Amino acid sequence: SSLSADTTQLPTTVVKNMPDALAGIHMNFLLRSSLEIPNGSMQSALKQNEARFEVLGTIVPNLDFRVRWRLNRSQAPKSLDNSPGSIDIASVNYAFGKEKKWSIQVGKQAAFVGSWEFEKNPTFEYQYSEFVNFQANIFMMGMKLGYQINENHAAYLQLHNTYNEDFTQAHAIAGYSTNGNKPSKSPMGVYTTWRGKMFDNKFQTFWSYDISKFASGQWNHSIALGNKLVVDRFEVYLDLQTANLALDHPNIASPSVNNYRLRMNSGLKPVFANDLNYKSAILRVDYEFVDKWFITGKGIFEAASQTKNNSVIGRNFRENIGLLAGIEYQPIASQQMKMFGYYYHNKVNYKGEVKMANTRTNLNLFAVGILYFINVF
Amino acid sequence: SSLSADTTQLPTTVVKNMPDALAGIHMNFLLRSSLEIPNGSMQSALKQNEARFEVLGTIVPNLDFRVRWRLNRSQAPKSLDNSPGSIDIASVNYAFGKEKKWSIQVGKQAAFVGSWEFEKNPTFEYQYSEFVNFQANIFMMGMKLGYQINENHAAYLQLHNTYNEDFTQAHAIAGYSTNGNKPSKSPMGVYTTWRGKMFDNKFQTFWSYDISKFASGQWNHSIALGNKLVVDRFEVYLDLQTANLALDHPNIASPSVNNYRLRMNSGLKPVFANDLNYKSAILRVDYEFVDKWFITGKGIFEAASQTKNNSVIGRNFRENIGLLAGIEYQPIASQQMKMFGYYYHNKVNYKGEVKMANTRTNLNLFAVGILYFINVF
Amino acid sequence: SSLSADTTQLPTTVVKNMPDALAGIHMNFLLRSSLEIPNGSMQSALKQNEARFEVLGTIVPNLDFRVRWRLNRSQAPKSLDNSPGSIDIASVNYAFGKEKKWSIQVGKQAAFVGSWEFEKNPTFEYQYSEFVNFQANIFMMGMKLGYQINENHAAYLQLHNTYNEDFTQAHAIAGYSTNGNKPSKSPMGVYTTWRGKMFDNKFQTFWSYDISKFASGQWNHSIALGNKLVVDRFEVYLDLQTANLALDHPNIASPSVNNYRLRMNSGLKPVFANDLNYKSAILRVDYEFVDKWFITGKGIFEAASQTKNNSVIGRNFRENIGLLAGIEYQPIASQQMKMFGYYYHNKVNYKGEVKMANTRTNLNLFAVGILYFINVF
Repeated sequence: SSLSADTTQLPTTVVKNMPDALAGIHMNFLLRSSLEIPNGSMQSALKQNEARFEVLGTIVPNLDFRVRWRLNRSQAPKSLDNSPGSIDIASVNYAFGKEKKWSIQVGKQAAFVGSWEFEKNPTFEYQYSEFVNFQANIFMMGMKLGYQINENHAAYLQLHNTYNEDFTQAHAIAGYSTNGNKPSKSPMGVYTTWRGKMFDNKFQTFWSYDISKFASGQWNHSIALGNKLVVDRFEVYLDLQTANLALDHPNIASPSVNNYRLRMNSGLKPVFANDLNYKSAILRVDYEFVDKWFITGKGIFEAASQTKNNSVIGRNFRENIGLLAGIEYQPIASQQMKMFGYYYHNKVNYKGEVKMANTRTNLNLFAVGILYFINVF
Repeated sequence: SSLSADTTQLPTTVVKNMPDALAGIHMNFLLRSSLEIPNGSMQSALKQNEARFEVLGTIVPNLDFRVRWRLNRSQAPKSLDNSPGSIDIASVNYAFGKEKKWSIQVGKQAAFVGSWEFEKNPTFEYQYSEFVNFQANIFMMGMKLGYQINENHAAYLQLHNTYNEDFTQAHAIAGYSTNGNKPSKSPMGVYTTWRGKMFDNKFQTFWSYDISKFASGQWNHSIALGNKLVVDRFEVYLDLQTANLALDHPNIASPSVNNYRLRMNSGLKPVFANDLNYKSAILRVDYEFVDKWFITGKGIFEAASQTKNNSVIGRNFRENIGLLAGIEYQPIASQQMKMFGYYYHNKVNYKGEVKMANTRTNLNLFAVGILYFINVF
Repeated sequence: SSLSADTTQLPTTVVKNMPDALAGIHMNFLLRSSLEIPNGSMQSALKQNEARFEVLGTIVPNLDFRVRWRLNRSQAPKSLDNSPGSIDIASVNYAFGKEKKWSIQVGKQAAFVGSWEFEKNPTFEYQYSEFVNFQANIFMMGMKLGYQINENHAAYLQLHNTYNEDFTQAHAIAGYSTNGNKPSKSPMGVYTTWRGKMFDNKFQTFWSYDISKFASGQWNHSIALGNKLVVDRFEVYLDLQTANLALDHPNIASPSVNNYRLRMNSGLKPVFANDLNYKSAILRVDYEFVDKWFITGKGIFEAASQTKNNSVIGRNFRENIGLLAGIEYQPIASQQMKMFGYYYHNKVNYKGEVKMANTRTNLNLFAVGILYFINVF
């Protein structure tokens, strides 16, 4: 099925007589372009939504490589990891042990966080949650140890950098005071992840727990429960996440807290907010209703809270809500090329004390375009 | 002939035993380097004139892709189209209808403006007019509908973004005041283009009309008539263009108008000039005078005018004139690798009121180097 | 042997049935990632040490091309050569003459300076001297004429840009006054280089002399003597260099001289120091002590002097010292993939008058990671 376009499977779209030298080697382009028409005074324009290049493969058994980069992102390296935002993946994976059940992947790689939204190939994901866009450090330097328990279940430990920028640079980019916080000597973390398949592969789990540090002595904890169901012409995922961040270095809800604090006391300096909790629920449904025609729907609900020490900020003070409905047409069965149209509604609401210092945002977007996951060879 | 190096044809340079998996797939590099020796105090140096990478092909009939990017241009995306200046092309082309006479190309693509100068592969075009360099938004997001009328004639409609930067960012980059202008809600336009072949393909037309908007309520109109003659060892193109820009967002002649205005009134703020007309005539001749040896000559004449409401700026107030003469040697018939030397003279003249506030520029450049359009496979 | 991984040889790692169309064509990735743990308050993190992409080959006899670029470096072009720091190599090489003993390489290329350290593929060189990192303009636009004297000896003349940035931009980046210096009209130089093989290829020389200009009328001279010994499972190189720079445009020792001058007279403006001499000795030893296991050691000693006109700055006023010891494991003989761990100590010392105005630096770094020179095809 064209639905199973996840990034962990090597594509085998058209059967061709592949020469020995290229067997196991793949070159891909990930393209998506669309005409976007937003509401209000925002400008309508043709947008380059995705443009990525990928080479991956297996030259000898048990040793894989994968390199993927975005063509529309600066290649200037970030301060902590010496890697630019343009590089998604540049890693080596080595399987070892009897029966090759163990593997170690080293290099720039995808965070192994329980998110089917993120796991989906970006060619096919029109609009992302703030969880994927900002909260999780989705492409990062890591070392991932894997163990294939049996045919259906695998467990992973992934050592990773918490963020791509170092403590000082992250504050400089945001224009924030460090507020007495100090950089962690080792701004890293560990994901513990379970990938499972059940009920004849119809149901798949992708569950993770992460512990990490950004500032000295301040621990972040997060749980992500990704669940996917694939039945016939129907595919649905539901991702549930909760994270307690000692310091809000992703800077999603901090601006609204700063607006509130500055309104109370205009002499304060803006800072990364402390002790935020982020929750998110993301649901996507895809259905091939007749041959070559698909409908897709997506719902995003995310909320930020600050409740520690009876904070006046309170529960769910900032909500991010997204709703998408779209239709897709795939004229050629062997090629993951789709013409699409979708409508997307997004709003950010504020509640409680924070509400008076922040204005809700509202986006209504209509888009029509073409996507193509090009498996060159 | 080595002359027909236009970018719309797939290269078939050396006949090799191509495996199935790569049939229809091409990888190219476009390289040109030279030692440039200018007159006056400008520094002589070895220059990387061109360095582009390209992958293009047809995996299944009726569906093509093409991606080409410059290796010596920042990958940071522009404000309106989310695409960097480094990406020339990242598009998908789908042919449809009975007999596949219809086609739709979506993504970053070449403006389908009537310019053989621009249509020529950049490996082989040493010096460009201001029309190609600045005036036309040559690589842009677009949706191009084509109809092949018969074997020799085709017609196209191309919806396109007017510019890569949005209204606010374009003003910020130039350091200009918006002068009371407002951004267009839809800063886009449409090219209507005719490509024709006549007289046994010896004469080819590439004519276009464009209407577009950049600022709210202000329409731009342009006509471009590209004409090409290929006879035996002789190739010549003559491109004629005229454009009326309601607002000079390409900012070619505005600096000289601002210099004049500020001299009249030093309290004024610089702005994009209104109601400019640009005209250009570009002629290039290539001739293989003996086997493997070519001479090439190019003439550029461009003029800007502001005549609306009897403007004091007047007709042809700024002229850009370029003259190039060169010699090329292609030692290996199958490979588009040439050693070259050329002389280029360029000057910018001012006339009328604007002349007193602007100094004419004068460039005499001698260059010697190597170019190679590398068809890797 | 896996030791001979120099960048001038085409890799032939795994024997595969290569189709005609790809015979002589190679695509490579150069990856190295590691967990770096430094001493003191510097942050530990996973680092992307190397991420480069390369395509090279020979499509017809006597004509080669090679393009290699870094994926983690900005693609914005530099002011003098129009080439970004990301591009290492983008050149064409053409062999000519009877018996094809002559060759001309044009484009971005490696400085043909006598440095086995630099000649080694960067995948395998963990830490560089300041000579390679800053002093030599290692990847630059050039035109290199070669003559193969006999099977074992070759001589080269390489015309090259002295620096990637022009005079004005180099000063602007450093924030320095031009100190009365003027830009050279032709900021270029020439390397004269000898490559030799002796004693049944066990001993190889790579010796060069360079003369170049950066500022008008101010000549730089340098001599570099690279020596390499390869015996069985043992490989060692010793590179010795000395350079007299009329103006210290690489800006290695100038900051410490400026600190001293400003301490003497706080009204002075920082400048590139005049008449510096840089010396360096770099030794690396690699030994495969049992199958698949390697030890590697490297020593770097570099010193800067200013002795002309009895300068108070004096001899060896700044020293850069580096010591590295590491172990490598290469599990698969055919694949240049290694797991490694190393310890690196680096310090910068100051002597004499300059000492009082500068603080010595001290780095102790432990690193563990994976490298893979991926010969995709």
